[in-house]
Amino acid sequence: MPADQYSENHTIPFFEGDVTYRMTMPMLINILMLCSDHQNAKLGVAQQTLIDRYGVGWVVTQYSIKIKQLPRVDETVKITTRGTSYNRFFAYREFWIHDEQGNELVKVDSIWVLMDEKARKITEIPQDIIRPYRSEQVRRVPRLPRPKRIDDASQTTTKKYQVRASDIDFNGHVNNAHYLEWMTDVLPLNFLVAHTPRQIDIRFENEVKYGNWVTSTVLVESQDHDEVKTVHEIMSNDVLSSSATFLWQKNDVEGNFR
Amino acid sequence: MPADQYSENHTIPFFEGDVTYRMTMPMLINILMLCSDHQNAKLGVAQQTLIDRYGVGWVVTQYSIKIKQLPRVDETVKITTRGTSYNRFFAYREFWIHDEQGNELVKVDSIWVLMDEKARKITEIPQDIIRPYRSEQVRRVPRLPRPKRIDDASQTTTKKYQVRASDIDFNGHVNNAHYLEWMTDVLPLNFLVAHTPRQIDIRFENEVKYGNWVTSTVLVESQDHDEVKTVHEIMSNDVLSSSATFLWQKNDVEGNFR
Repeated sequence: MPADQYSENHTIPFFEGDVTYRMTMPMLINILMLCSDHQNAKLGVAQQTLIDRYGVGWVVTQYSIKIKQLPRVDETVKITTRGTSYNRFFAYREFWIHDEQGNELVKVDSIWVLMDEKARKITEIPQDIIRPYRSEQVRRVPRLPRPKRIDDASQTTTKKYQVRASDIDFNGHVNNAHYLEWMTDVLPLNFLVAHTPRQIDIRFENEVKYGNWVTSTVLVESQDHDEVKTVHEIMSNDVLSSSATFLWQKNDVEGNFR
Repeated sequence: MPADQYSENHTIPFFEGDVTYRMTMPMLINILMLCSDHQNAKLGVAQQTLIDRYGVGWVVTQYSIKIKQLPRVDETVKITTRGTSYNRFFAYREFWIHDEQGNELVKVDSIWVLMDEKARKITEIPQDIIRPYRSEQVRRVPRLPRPKRIDDASQTTTKKYQVRASDIDFNGHVNNAHYLEWMTDVLPLNFLVAHTPRQIDIRFENEVKYGNWVTSTVLVESQDHDEVKTVHEIMSNDVLSSSATFLWQKNDVEGNFR
């Protein structure tokens, strides 16, 4: 039997959009997480159940995001997910976002691990937890593109952010979506208005905690043929917390922003 | 005929909740604004229509928020609004949030003005714009409680925030909900976990712009009978941008937050 596939619709309210009426990257990640949460609950393995019964929780270590077109404010999209394959320690989950005509707007590959909530260490994936997804057991899960590291610190731009109460989820962790907010906000608003991300490869390395300061650094690496590559690092107390590579495409300015 | 009344349902996703699974104040404001936007559109006077045809837009100057119980993550609530009354310059709009059993959870009174988008000045409310709401024309709209000002600067706590790209809406303004984020985040996380707002009176005075730094200041004024009063000011370049008074009630700690 193929892997269990779960879909739901979502209409994008104004507060999930940016100045150009496009869905923000943090909100795009949030609606994918919501969809996988709902599949987990449907299959009887909700995050809360895992914490209560096994003392473990799923954590994303890597996303590879391919964007043909960003969902727009007031648009209704269909989000689909499945847990495609897994091995002893890693699970590979896919997401798709389609418009109402069935066109694929966004495809996301993600790698997950199970974290022991007390020890904060990766644990083996128990059969009881993975079985409901009907994921294929494999020797190796797909290897997602590794983000580049910043090699030339002389050309970077930096902003500092303090982790807010509202950045913390019900488990006391920083919601992954906020890393994408820190990574995009370090770029100037006029850049964000004039460009759309086409591909994002992001890895999460070390957790940051409430009240900590993080430094978001970006290097604009190449600007060829209307395409820009940016390399991002989020550091906290000199430790790498997350790294990412973005490919951006120039676009026509939309919306009322002046 | 009574004023046009509009209702819609909303299910609270995890990313609209805080560490205690309760809806955050910024998100509560967002879903009210979404509801009034949908009423505006239904009545043929959407924000975009007002900008395109008249060069004006509605702006909230004051909210008075009474909370019996905050909506919780995964709960479906019903939001209701009507434009109750207006005079030459001010419109009075009411909101209610009910749970699925019909219990009132939240009541919000709000005062709105029409802003000329180019001149950034308040303009008279034209009949064409207000007529569809069937609001009552009155000499005086209700006067909402005026927030206190901070009188003792020696006991205050302060945090600084830089206005982010994601704080800006499609008109280039800071979405009002972010003021509530700055006002709550200045309080320590353990205070936020242990208290629930019961009443919030907030006034918006002067706009802040992208890239500006704001200072969020709070004075914890009284702690009687399990009730705490906090007085808030948001300043930008030494100008008062927003002020608020919050009444908080102590509550049992919920959720997994440790």
